[in-house]
Amino acid sequence: MSTVKDLLKQKPLLQEVTLKGWVRTFRSNRFIALNDGSCLGNLQCVVDFESMDEALLRRITTGAAIAVTGTLVESQGRGQSVEIQVKDLEILGDADPETYPIQPKKHSLEFLREQAHLRVRTSTFSAVMRIRAALSFAVHQYFTSRNFYYFHAPIITGSDAEGAGEMFRVTTLDPKSPPLDETGEVDYKKDFFGKETNLTVSGQLEAESYAMGLGKVYTFGPTFRAENSNTSRHLAEFWMIEPEMAFYDLDANMDLAEDFIQEVLKYVLENCQEDLEFLEKRLADEEKSKPAAERSEMPLIEKLRFVTDQPFKRVTYTEAIDILRNSKPNKKKKFQFPIDEWGADLQSEHERFLVEKHFKCPVILFNYPAKIKAFYMRLNEDGKTVRAMDVLFPGIGEIVGGSQREERLDVLVEKMEALGIEEKELWWYLELRKFGTAPHSGFGLGFERLVQFATGMGNIRDVIPFPRTPQNAEF
Amino acid sequence: MSTVKDLLKQKPLLQEVTLKGWVRTFRSNRFIALNDGSCLGNLQCVVDFESMDEALLRRITTGAAIAVTGTLVESQGRGQSVEIQVKDLEILGDADPETYPIQPKKHSLEFLREQAHLRVRTSTFSAVMRIRAALSFAVHQYFTSRNFYYFHAPIITGSDAEGAGEMFRVTTLDPKSPPLDETGEVDYKKDFFGKETNLTVSGQLEAESYAMGLGKVYTFGPTFRAENSNTSRHLAEFWMIEPEMAFYDLDANMDLAEDFIQEVLKYVLENCQEDLEFLEKRLADEEKSKPAAERSEMPLIEKLRFVTDQPFKRVTYTEAIDILRNSKPNKKKKFQFPIDEWGADLQSEHERFLVEKHFKCPVILFNYPAKIKAFYMRLNEDGKTVRAMDVLFPGIGEIVGGSQREERLDVLVEKMEALGIEEKELWWYLELRKFGTAPHSGFGLGFERLVQFATGMGNIRDVIPFPRTPQNAEF
Repeated sequence: MSTVKDLLKQKPLLQEVTLKGWVRTFRSNRFIALNDGSCLGNLQCVVDFESMDEALLRRITTGAAIAVTGTLVESQGRGQSVEIQVKDLEILGDADPETYPIQPKKHSLEFLREQAHLRVRTSTFSAVMRIRAALSFAVHQYFTSRNFYYFHAPIITGSDAEGAGEMFRVTTLDPKSPPLDETGEVDYKKDFFGKETNLTVSGQLEAESYAMGLGKVYTFGPTFRAENSNTSRHLAEFWMIEPEMAFYDLDANMDLAEDFIQEVLKYVLENCQEDLEFLEKRLADEEKSKPAAERSEMPLIEKLRFVTDQPFKRVTYTEAIDILRNSKPNKKKKFQFPIDEWGADLQSEHERFLVEKHFKCPVILFNYPAKIKAFYMRLNEDGKTVRAMDVLFPGIGEIVGGSQREERLDVLVEKMEALGIEEKELWWYLELRKFGTAPHSGFGLGFERLVQFATGMGNIRDVIPFPRTPQNAEF
Repeated sequence: MSTVKDLLKQKPLLQEVTLKGWVRTFRSNRFIALNDGSCLGNLQCVVDFESMDEALLRRITTGAAIAVTGTLVESQGRGQSVEIQVKDLEILGDADPETYPIQPKKHSLEFLREQAHLRVRTSTFSAVMRIRAALSFAVHQYFTSRNFYYFHAPIITGSDAEGAGEMFRVTTLDPKSPPLDETGEVDYKKDFFGKETNLTVSGQLEAESYAMGLGKVYTFGPTFRAENSNTSRHLAEFWMIEPEMAFYDLDANMDLAEDFIQEVLKYVLENCQEDLEFLEKRLADEEKSKPAAERSEMPLIEKLRFVTDQPFKRVTYTEAIDILRNSKPNKKKKFQFPIDEWGADLQSEHERFLVEKHFKCPVILFNYPAKIKAFYMRLNEDGKTVRAMDVLFPGIGEIVGGSQREERLDVLVEKMEALGIEEKELWWYLELRKFGTAPHSGFGLGFERLVQFATGMGNIRDVIPFPRTPQNAEF
């Protein structure tokens, strides 16, 4: 059995081929644009309607599954090099034009979100999902070829250690009348795992334990936030990539983050050209309907090259605050959150200013104030900053957050105490510092943000097959 | 910075190298076996104890993290080609021999399970986890190079559609006093997703929707079973691989399953030789302590070649029942579950008999009785069997289960009605049959079973980093 992708690459050899796929359009009772998902393009299948049963002809509708057998020949028409002269045509499955929702016209992304089981049959979503798959493979190939070991972090976890966000409870207790203990509280000893359990917000801490044995590891798995954020940037269930490396300091960590992002995006530029060009055009069309100020400054592929073709600028948080404080938008009070003093958390508007207006290249900020970063980040000698780093991108702001980890037991314990994190919750994490501790680093990258960047899709719900958001777990 | 893996491959070039890792052993105050996780082997680092501070020497203990700088030279001793003559040695992190649990002696697998954060620092677990990572990459490479698209199935799901097992509830409702509706039942409308949600037991149904747009897809993600099975074969959280292909019939499905398993195991044979040899020896040692009848008949690598080097025998369920009914162990009542008549579900003992005693090769059974298989499997013309297939392996029995899917709307609806599955639960799954339906197939493979087969580990808890089982969600 042939695929559209293979046939489009072939010279017209006059061989007989069989192709199965779904009708995208059928015009003039003669030209079928047949798609099988193997690539963006359709293969034109030409039927001789005069010799064909009329009842059969009427069933060649958008969305119908068909099998055609015929001869592959040089195409007479424009827009394709080859086409199939159909000898036999079989309807595998009809698609009633009165009820099939995906018709050959422009559907809004909102409408298609409600058809998440069918939307991958459109050019836009098939292109997005092929790029998502290509990026996934690029991630595995990048790390595996560099001697990182893929590590499956646990999804169900017994502790809210990282404090990265609200968590979902995982339970098999009676939902209405849970067993209570002698103090009248829910008796989690009777729950499936004998304790309260949640869905993980990050596999980092567990990945650290593996880095301290295998050297270099990475996670690539689902993570969860039970935050009631109904925005175009948040999902309750999303995929994260978290490499963790023994013996890496912050500089080595920044080197890796920069090289990693550049290489996986280069992979997409090299392997997904057709899909990228389609999405670039889609984005350009979409932008036409926006006010000029909201349009992106670069076409999609140029934006990818902006990241892959130049080194990232590395700037300390302190330098960045100086730049922002003295910037035009800050002085003219154009920022929604004005920058007054050292210690302020940066917002997306500030990050984008640094990347798009000031440096005009991707930026890595490092050495952040300890107070606005997580407890496990390594304290600098100044006692007030930590070896954190964020990678900032045009259009989206932060795409990667990472740090060198605090490897000193006493400093880590002190930090946890100050934040009220109980030692018994993280006894095993502390043991990594008791036994053979060493400097180590890592970072996290929200995979959907990367897919958004690579595809130009504005809403994060459009880059994951079945998005999970507040009030929505359909399919 | 060098790695052990790289240095062991190099000729002794007399260059100065720096290596960081963890001390495995230190003998004669002179020979450090240093491991950094990059491979199974250690690099011997030779210190000149006479010129070294005694206090420093005492800190070179098993598990300590150290950095050494020195010259890479041809080794004088046996067992290694190169070694480092140490010039500088720095202790990065101590490991107190009085308290560090992983000492250079034989630890039981049970003991190490309680040290899941440290056990990857042993040769056995580092070998298992490197093979796990290699198998993962082989899976992605196999499918990607054959034009399958990686598809991320949702983890949180709104329906227990497949009925594959007990599920974990995912919730943010007050655990003690959940909101109730007017009928006095838990009001899931107030839960995070506005309905009752669970952790997925399989991504198959969603993968089918993507196969019907992208042609060939596969999942590789975590799945969950809330079954109270405290055995060496069950996990509450495990990873599944589920390819799904439009236009594949059962024969094509069997071809794919056989080729897939053979290719990923060949990848491990080619890329993990050192780790396999170590695990083969470990298994042989372990088997010595077992009664002869329980020992496996083949050494580890031979067992892998048993699968990769010969075609799988394809047999219908009906033929298999005949063979089993007339088999010696059945007649002599040696089976725990005797085979009486057509329709019986096969147990591991029967599957292993077919593979190990009767055919002496991997076996694919197909065309099972409809009654013992899932609702979505395609009914054969005989009206009583379905196009199901199971791949059976030596030692473990079933490793893959799959089928051609029922693509006919009326047959599927009838089947669901008979089983009491509500149409409104699966409206979207039925729509795949309403619009452009086509024959399609797929299968599922429990990844940990495959890792067990490739590593020879007897307990499934020893092939996943942090196992989740009843009463256990530590770390």
